Amino acid sequence: MSILKKVDHIGIAVRSIDKSVAYYIDTLGLKLLAIEEVVSQNVRVAFIDAGNIKLELLEPLSEEGAIAKFLAKRGEGVHHIAFGVTDIRTRMAELQEKGVQLLQDEPNPGAGGAKVAFLHPKSSFGVLYELCDKSSKGE
Amino acid sequence: MSILKKVDHIGIAVRSIDKSVAYYIDTLGLKLLAIEEVVSQNVRVAFIDAGNIKLELLEPLSEEGAIAKFLAKRGEGVHHIAFGVTDIRTRMAELQEKGVQLLQDEPNPGAGGAKVAFLHPKSSFGVLYELCDKSSKGE
Repeated sequence: MSILKKVDHIGIAVRSIDKSVAYYIDTLGLKLLAIEEVVSQNVRVAFIDAGNIKLELLEPLSEEGAIAKFLAKRGEGVHHIAFGVTDIRTRMAELQEKGVQLLQDEPNPGAGGAKVAFLHPKSSFGVLYELCDKSSKGE
Repeated sequence: MSILKKVDHIGIAVRSIDKSVAYYIDTLGLKLLAIEEVVSQNVRVAFIDAGNIKLELLEPLSEEGAIAKFLAKRGEGVHHIAFGVTDIRTRMAELQEKGVQLLQDEPNPGAGGAKVAFLHPKSSFGVLYELCDKSSKGE
């Protein structure tokens, strides 16, 4: 079985969910799916339906956390690309066996009830890839 | 009709197509679709099948051009997100009417025979979006 199934979403760091959602909906004509807070990640998240994948707008809830740091360093823009997977712990182990550095040893809780883990951008030629497991096997 | 259909590909700036393609194929288990040169854009391009969308790896052919400048300024990483469209000139006009700033007035030739145009990242909250028209109407 392939390690990665398909792209689930693209994570985009924004300073304001309200302003950016208005742009995606009113100007680009896309559809808002949901807005939620992921307190463990210190972000407010808006999911936009982009047809075949979702755009995940990420606004920091405070000046702490990865998204706040990203905004301070890089400004608004693409933060990560998330691949949908099943059996996230098995996928993590397979990648580690192949020499890929992960940012954590255990999956973290993500938006939408998913279990997530990140590949180190140094392993992935500058791109921050997320593994995103929405199946019960991710528990 | 909606302005944007779905995400066609994610453009990723890399220093070496050869090294990064090996990672995507051998390590991540994805499939290489094609490699081509787009001389007008001064890039060598590899298309990777990511299931529902493509990853477009972009290596500069010289130190000139947008990708070479991006690498010098930001390093390797996500460069743009491309939406598939039809009737690209109509879509460009619709966006301009809504106040979106475009990076060019006329579509440019892109990889795979597409006609492409970019939205200014300042209009799109830091993301460089591309309109990508592969239909004959883009001519």
